[in-house]
Amino acid sequence: MKRVTSMAQVISKMADKNLHHHKPALDYLFHPESVAVAGVSGDPTKLNGGRIFTENLINAGFQGKIYPVGAGGGDLRGLKIYPSIAAIPDKVDFVISSVPAKYAPQLLRDSAAKGVKAMHLFTAGFSESGEDEGNELESEVIDIARQTGIRLVGPNCMGLYCPSSGLSFCADFPQESGSVGFLSQSGGHSLYGTLEATARGIRFSKVISYGNASDLNESDYLEYLAEDPDTSIIAVYIEGAKDGHRLMEVLKRAAQAKPLIIFKGGTTEYGSRTASSHTASITGSDSVWSSLIKQVGAIQVDSTEEMFDVVLLFDHMSPPKSRNVALAGLGGGFSVYAADVFAKEGLTIPLFPPEVSEQLKKNDFTSAGKIFNNPVDIFSHGSSQLIQHVIATILSLDQIDFLVVHIAFDTLPVPEAWEGHLYIEALNKLREEISRRTVVVLHTVALPRSKNLAAEVQETIAKAGYAVYPSFSRAARAIAKFAQYHRC
Amino acid sequence: MKRVTSMAQVISKMADKNLHHHKPALDYLFHPESVAVAGVSGDPTKLNGGRIFTENLINAGFQGKIYPVGAGGGDLRGLKIYPSIAAIPDKVDFVISSVPAKYAPQLLRDSAAKGVKAMHLFTAGFSESGEDEGNELESEVIDIARQTGIRLVGPNCMGLYCPSSGLSFCADFPQESGSVGFLSQSGGHSLYGTLEATARGIRFSKVISYGNASDLNESDYLEYLAEDPDTSIIAVYIEGAKDGHRLMEVLKRAAQAKPLIIFKGGTTEYGSRTASSHTASITGSDSVWSSLIKQVGAIQVDSTEEMFDVVLLFDHMSPPKSRNVALAGLGGGFSVYAADVFAKEGLTIPLFPPEVSEQLKKNDFTSAGKIFNNPVDIFSHGSSQLIQHVIATILSLDQIDFLVVHIAFDTLPVPEAWEGHLYIEALNKLREEISRRTVVVLHTVALPRSKNLAAEVQETIAKAGYAVYPSFSRAARAIAKFAQYHRC
Repeated sequence: MKRVTSMAQVISKMADKNLHHHKPALDYLFHPESVAVAGVSGDPTKLNGGRIFTENLINAGFQGKIYPVGAGGGDLRGLKIYPSIAAIPDKVDFVISSVPAKYAPQLLRDSAAKGVKAMHLFTAGFSESGEDEGNELESEVIDIARQTGIRLVGPNCMGLYCPSSGLSFCADFPQESGSVGFLSQSGGHSLYGTLEATARGIRFSKVISYGNASDLNESDYLEYLAEDPDTSIIAVYIEGAKDGHRLMEVLKRAAQAKPLIIFKGGTTEYGSRTASSHTASITGSDSVWSSLIKQVGAIQVDSTEEMFDVVLLFDHMSPPKSRNVALAGLGGGFSVYAADVFAKEGLTIPLFPPEVSEQLKKNDFTSAGKIFNNPVDIFSHGSSQLIQHVIATILSLDQIDFLVVHIAFDTLPVPEAWEGHLYIEALNKLREEISRRTVVVLHTVALPRSKNLAAEVQETIAKAGYAVYPSFSRAARAIAKFAQYHRC
Repeated sequence: MKRVTSMAQVISKMADKNLHHHKPALDYLFHPESVAVAGVSGDPTKLNGGRIFTENLINAGFQGKIYPVGAGGGDLRGLKIYPSIAAIPDKVDFVISSVPAKYAPQLLRDSAAKGVKAMHLFTAGFSESGEDEGNELESEVIDIARQTGIRLVGPNCMGLYCPSSGLSFCADFPQESGSVGFLSQSGGHSLYGTLEATARGIRFSKVISYGNASDLNESDYLEYLAEDPDTSIIAVYIEGAKDGHRLMEVLKRAAQAKPLIIFKGGTTEYGSRTASSHTASITGSDSVWSSLIKQVGAIQVDSTEEMFDVVLLFDHMSPPKSRNVALAGLGGGFSVYAADVFAKEGLTIPLFPPEVSEQLKKNDFTSAGKIFNNPVDIFSHGSSQLIQHVIATILSLDQIDFLVVHIAFDTLPVPEAWEGHLYIEALNKLREEISRRTVVVLHTVALPRSKNLAAEVQETIAKAGYAVYPSFSRAARAIAKFAQYHRC
């Protein structure tokens, strides 16, 4: 599919040039030649972290060697389970630890003796527990890491996903690479966010779930993503900063280099209290964070969903020149609703020039309301060409920077009357010309059969290269932030 | 299922007593003995409004006689299609018109001659078109209605759904009756809203889609629903008022009698402009509407979804004494997020007393974060009894008015690890004691298989009597409005 170059791509190419022969310092983390997974059970009936991490590496097509390690021995998908790190016959670059916290210090010492460069501690039960034992263990682990030079990812996190090398922590992550770098202090957010984004057509350069950030911290990772030539958009979920001053500097540089979208967790009293139990984070004041994010030129969002709502626009759309939106789809009530929602987000829904309205009127395509202006209420009379014609007419207007095509479910009295497939046909035919100015909203999904259908339609339209949203409000909010970023 | 009596039910019973022998004036609209559907095509391959309305009546089990009428004759599901209203051998109480607008005046005259009491004009192409022809036709139709005494529903609307008599305008509406009266100026909203609410366990006394409101208007219907003993909660979607002064009076009386939830469309300049094309409404100023809704004691919402988010609480929950919320489910990041979302809506997430926290700690049930306080991060270790124990412990606290149990999808690296079914088991066991203080949030649904699963889980939990929400933010917003209504 031919695509107009977006701002994110231009910036990325510039960065690419500057960094021509330079690999960012932490790049070795994402490209180990061999990985050992510690804490692997030989019992296939057991739901065991070590087994899951090993299977994920195999399924993700990890390009190096994989060594499962577990005291019980046995094998896993044809791989021998070694009784210890020391017993592995070759060198080991990276260790994924799924052992209980109390065994982590010994594992680190064994790994150091083996020449391991870095370790991901999936293992939890450290400072986030708020208990003395956990605090002491975390201190001990950090001390050993500093003494031996092993860098730590975590503890208490999912670790690294890098499709280009085959590192992965979830069976459902795609093997295909993309341009988004996602840094998440929460393991749950890193899993769900990546899956949600994937279903909507976003692909990743790297996903980093980093938990307690005891050694490598948010600034280290962010610095890496800012320099990484494979990353052109950065998304961050963060609860607290280990070093506020350094983070401020790094955020500034990252936001200058690439679009930077930040979801800050623990912005309220109750959320902050919870974050200290979750990742032992000191969250800091909400207003300080909000002004910091604004000051560095990053975009603040309030949820994982909103994070990828915004990322999707940077990934899929051309930079806009205005806040002008056109809305087109079936339904009078939904046209009123859409207009209200977009207006409340500060977007403009300009009337079309009289000659365009007249041109639209020639095809008597509306249903009840006969709305031949913006928003346009299209009733297709069974013809995708008619929908195509309306869309093309609207997009012939240079003043329109965003066309929102909406496809409704469950707003007609019989399923046979559903017009969605005609919209899909029209969008598919037009995609080369319009996908970078058009977003699609799939709304009013109530019945179970419509939920299946909406999931299918989302996939089809995302594959055609459109940014897809499940509601007007999510599309409107994201567009407003995207326009604001481009000073519209 | 045994249920504690809610405020809405108490009020409804009081109204019931007062209105013991009194049927509200418009009741005959909803209980016709015979219905003629005009504009029925004999061709079964054609998607024809008249056929759809006739089939819906048959499928909904309409208890009176059904007479399809169409110039072409033929038959439909064993019913003879009469060439005209005059040709019907028996009396006709109610006519559903699907004929083109230009034939509506003649249909009205024919119906008057037949002794018809009321007509629903699905037919559009009247004043909402903004064209002279439409305006003139609408005036003519109103004149004939006034002269003949026939009352009009519409034009440009879906008409009436009344499960107790079998009137229906959608094949997917349930035959079961409930306590919610829903009045909608938009046909699309009336269809989608009813289906969405139905999927979430709400049942209706009446749904009225009323379009242009040329004869019977919003005040007439609202007055009816306020008096209707079968309706204990009223939900309204309105674009404009035909008679502002009277509407103000009726809204006041309705809000005094029953919880009244209002979604006003066309609150912005762009939405208002669209509404005038949709239902020929003059929407009026947003601030006037907002203060009017507040003044009469009704609840304003911003979408169909939010409307039923709030209705669900009136239908399912006991009146609260406070804004105190407890949150329980799997995930540290999601616990932080939930706490932030509920706090931003002005709800309180109190810490549990130390002895309760200690009691929870005894079962080491958390995952990473070991959060033994509010919000509680539950990792079940495969036991629904553990979840049940945690929930029961929380609800033993009198200070907690709302327990939000959240079930996450796509936040674990393998689907086999999904714990949702254990939550469902626990909720099912506890439902008699807790359903009226507990809402369920099904969140983080990304993968197609999770969308199917979430739809199934929603149905199961709604059937068990719980109010179910698809996101923290929707649950929090509805709970805040529900608490505010009860002066908490």
